Amino acid sequence: MVSPALEHRIRAKRLLTRVTSPQEAARLVEDGMAVGIGTGISSACPKTFFTALANEFKGKGKIKLFTGGPVPDEVDGLLVEADIVERRFGQFKNPLLLKAANDRSIPVVEERTGILPHQVRDGRFGKIDIAVIQATAITEQGHIIPTTSCLDAPSYTVLANRVIVEINPNIPEEIEGIHDIYIPEVAPDRKPIPIVHAGDRIGTPYIPVDPDKIVAIIESNIPDNPPPRPPINETSQKVAEYLLEFFTNEVKRGRLPTSLLPLQFGIGTIPEAIAEALCESVFNDIEIFSGAVGDGGLDLIDAGKVKALSVAALYLSEGGFDRFYKDISRYKSKIILRPVVIADCPELIARLGCIAINGAIEVDIYGHVNSSHIQGTRIISGVGGSCDFLWNAYLSIVVLPSVARKGVISSIVPMVTHVDHPEHAIDLIITEQGYADLRGLSPVERAKKIIDKCAHPSYKDILREYLQEAIENRGGHEPHILEKAFNLHIAYLKNGTMRS
Amino acid sequence: MVSPALEHRIRAKRLLTRVTSPQEAARLVEDGMAVGIGTGISSACPKTFFTALANEFKGKGKIKLFTGGPVPDEVDGLLVEADIVERRFGQFKNPLLLKAANDRSIPVVEERTGILPHQVRDGRFGKIDIAVIQATAITEQGHIIPTTSCLDAPSYTVLANRVIVEINPNIPEEIEGIHDIYIPEVAPDRKPIPIVHAGDRIGTPYIPVDPDKIVAIIESNIPDNPPPRPPINETSQKVAEYLLEFFTNEVKRGRLPTSLLPLQFGIGTIPEAIAEALCESVFNDIEIFSGAVGDGGLDLIDAGKVKALSVAALYLSEGGFDRFYKDISRYKSKIILRPVVIADCPELIARLGCIAINGAIEVDIYGHVNSSHIQGTRIISGVGGSCDFLWNAYLSIVVLPSVARKGVISSIVPMVTHVDHPEHAIDLIITEQGYADLRGLSPVERAKKIIDKCAHPSYKDILREYLQEAIENRGGHEPHILEKAFNLHIAYLKNGTMRS
Repeated sequence: MVSPALEHRIRAKRLLTRVTSPQEAARLVEDGMAVGIGTGISSACPKTFFTALANEFKGKGKIKLFTGGPVPDEVDGLLVEADIVERRFGQFKNPLLLKAANDRSIPVVEERTGILPHQVRDGRFGKIDIAVIQATAITEQGHIIPTTSCLDAPSYTVLANRVIVEINPNIPEEIEGIHDIYIPEVAPDRKPIPIVHAGDRIGTPYIPVDPDKIVAIIESNIPDNPPPRPPINETSQKVAEYLLEFFTNEVKRGRLPTSLLPLQFGIGTIPEAIAEALCESVFNDIEIFSGAVGDGGLDLIDAGKVKALSVAALYLSEGGFDRFYKDISRYKSKIILRPVVIADCPELIARLGCIAINGAIEVDIYGHVNSSHIQGTRIISGVGGSCDFLWNAYLSIVVLPSVARKGVISSIVPMVTHVDHPEHAIDLIITEQGYADLRGLSPVERAKKIIDKCAHPSYKDILREYLQEAIENRGGHEPHILEKAFNLHIAYLKNGTMRS
Repeated sequence: MVSPALEHRIRAKRLLTRVTSPQEAARLVEDGMAVGIGTGISSACPKTFFTALANEFKGKGKIKLFTGGPVPDEVDGLLVEADIVERRFGQFKNPLLLKAANDRSIPVVEERTGILPHQVRDGRFGKIDIAVIQATAITEQGHIIPTTSCLDAPSYTVLANRVIVEINPNIPEEIEGIHDIYIPEVAPDRKPIPIVHAGDRIGTPYIPVDPDKIVAIIESNIPDNPPPRPPINETSQKVAEYLLEFFTNEVKRGRLPTSLLPLQFGIGTIPEAIAEALCESVFNDIEIFSGAVGDGGLDLIDAGKVKALSVAALYLSEGGFDRFYKDISRYKSKIILRPVVIADCPELIARLGCIAINGAIEVDIYGHVNSSHIQGTRIISGVGGSCDFLWNAYLSIVVLPSVARKGVISSIVPMVTHVDHPEHAIDLIITEQGYADLRGLSPVERAKKIIDKCAHPSYKDILREYLQEAIENRGGHEPHILEKAFNLHIAYLKNGTMRS
């Protein structure tokens, strides 16, 4: 029953008796249980277990599901299809789960990625019954070595009475040592987290676990299916150029060193463009302190630009994983994989002085940011770590194209229809049109600058007219005409375009 | 020239030569300078200096003014009247400055109280030329002992090349020892702040300063004029009762100890009611970790309820200060006065697991909070420390009456007209109608609970109709009808009431 590959990876031999089939493991789940997915994003997810669960558990009840990262189809897709999700906590991107969130058939509770594990541990959502974790191996002592993501694994492992481990023998064993597992105490017994540089290691290279809690070990048998690398386009390239222009100006003014400050940028076309631009830049000895990183992170290491790269998860393409696996020992000297409570930790983001760079759906003239809800209504993604970073960084930067859908939607609007990040948290807005440095400005000064520097030329006049009318007819510190604040959005709903 | 009282308070005798008149000191200020008020709120403010400045400097130029707390009339009022404020950073409440912010004659830059000193220190707003600090005394080494507030004093003292000290001989010398001055480094060189309990002392009882930077010492000659103690009314009493009911339930469920967790509540009728209710409660050994505290804080100490009380400023009434001054040594064993970068520090708020309790103008059905702008337009107060606390606390609670202006305004609305605190930061809403525990709920579940528990009966139907129509006609995760989201606000503008 135990394959040679699995036997080799389970170094605590007494745990070999826990090896079972995915179906048997899935049967441990009972109606009403809370299940935490310890490791999330992309290839690092225990897909074999959840595929079995969707089959075995269908029609037998429902579970509450907790996850840090946006887990792949094999979790959110299959479980939603099988109708076994009673309530879903955490980050998500899966189309079926988004549909369920938007038709409200499943209550979906968005939480800040870096905070959710703390909230789960303080008991406000009830207990976690089972943690499911993808692993590279189990050590001689029975501790768990994760794969290419840590995310909430350590927190759920501590919390759950039962742990199911899915070992993926396709992950090279050389990955051992890349992880740094440290789990902060629950308040009020929490201690200062002793990290002062992005590259500091403060924990163990494995998730410590009482081996008696490991109730099942299964072998991964579903191939990884990483997403393609997001292509860089002219817009994202322009945004990246303006970001680097801003960095250059800050260095000139003596406000940033040439090594910059620890950078956070996520996944997508703009982050890839930023990585490419940094590769070709004068900036050196860069630290990355981020929730996740894409192929651009490897490019930066290969270009000799990186001093340390700290993330909770690697979100690579197939080609990216190939590069990473072939040369793990070299990448390991730079990359640290951390639990998300450390990778996205507000205390550390503030202490390290991170430069947080996050995307958005729309931004308003005063600098409020909507990252989650189209027309204030339809969610397209959980906020993930964007609150953790933008609310606490040394510099909080929002990057987005000035228009969407070939220009019929302006991303700069009089008032955003949903606020995830208030004006108080935002320092800089960058579009392909330019950058607006909002630091030290009053609301109307910010509005003028955002319109001038960031709005698309075809919307500048509309936005200026709104601002002028609001100033004249309503006045106030942050002038708005409530009857007209959403006129652009309403025009789009009616006519399919915001252009008048 | 040097009064005996002043001579006695300046223990570094070589600094006696720096004693000068308020007028002479005011003449050190030049056009275009940036002035930081080290100590703010109420009686602790260097009022004599700023009164002189308003007279001396009028017509001679303008200054940029930085302050942590909402400084009294002698600063914002006189300086605005004298038309010498070029730009104003930080918290404020003064009517004249509010008017200037709302007619945009002075650019007013709201910043988070706990973050502003860091931002000032990183140089983004230019340099600080002069720090002005109210002091009880100057030590033998030339260090400064503040009075009843610390606020930004330590940060500006470090930063400015010139420090003006206003000594107030009316402050009893026994206050020495109440302060705990610790100034975190600027990122990326910041270290963990070694506080793990609200009562921990980690710094010095004085503000360390190079005595050569002290360019002038003046004597306070303007009597303190503390605000009256806010009266408790039926509404605030009800809100406090519901808060304690919630605490009691959490203790029953084993999620809070009977000592609760470090509490933050500000100044005003609801905070006073909360203090009164706590005095009469079963809760004991309470820690307070807050930006400021009113007379209720003294009541709690007198009732034997307090283990430690950590604030940046005492915001007491005249009677409160009398009590405090008469019995300083007893109060000193409980009270710690800290710089605002520590008192309002996100790192510490999260680590200690604070329970943050803050007021608001309005809250929407999904839990977004407006604390600053009426009709999304007119500012009535800076956000102060509310972002620092609500965004980082273990439990983030918003308290407000369910209606305003005798019922013609509902404080629960379909969509708030300005967001200072997004849904992601809010755990609980409490009005005199009841409390809504929002933890673990989806947006529509939250909306139903907020309407049921917190809205005033005369608005419940209007709110339910909006929600129902939004669900049916627009759907989505957080249903909104943008054409109607502000209908209540628009009705109030037109008809003077939100009631249809």
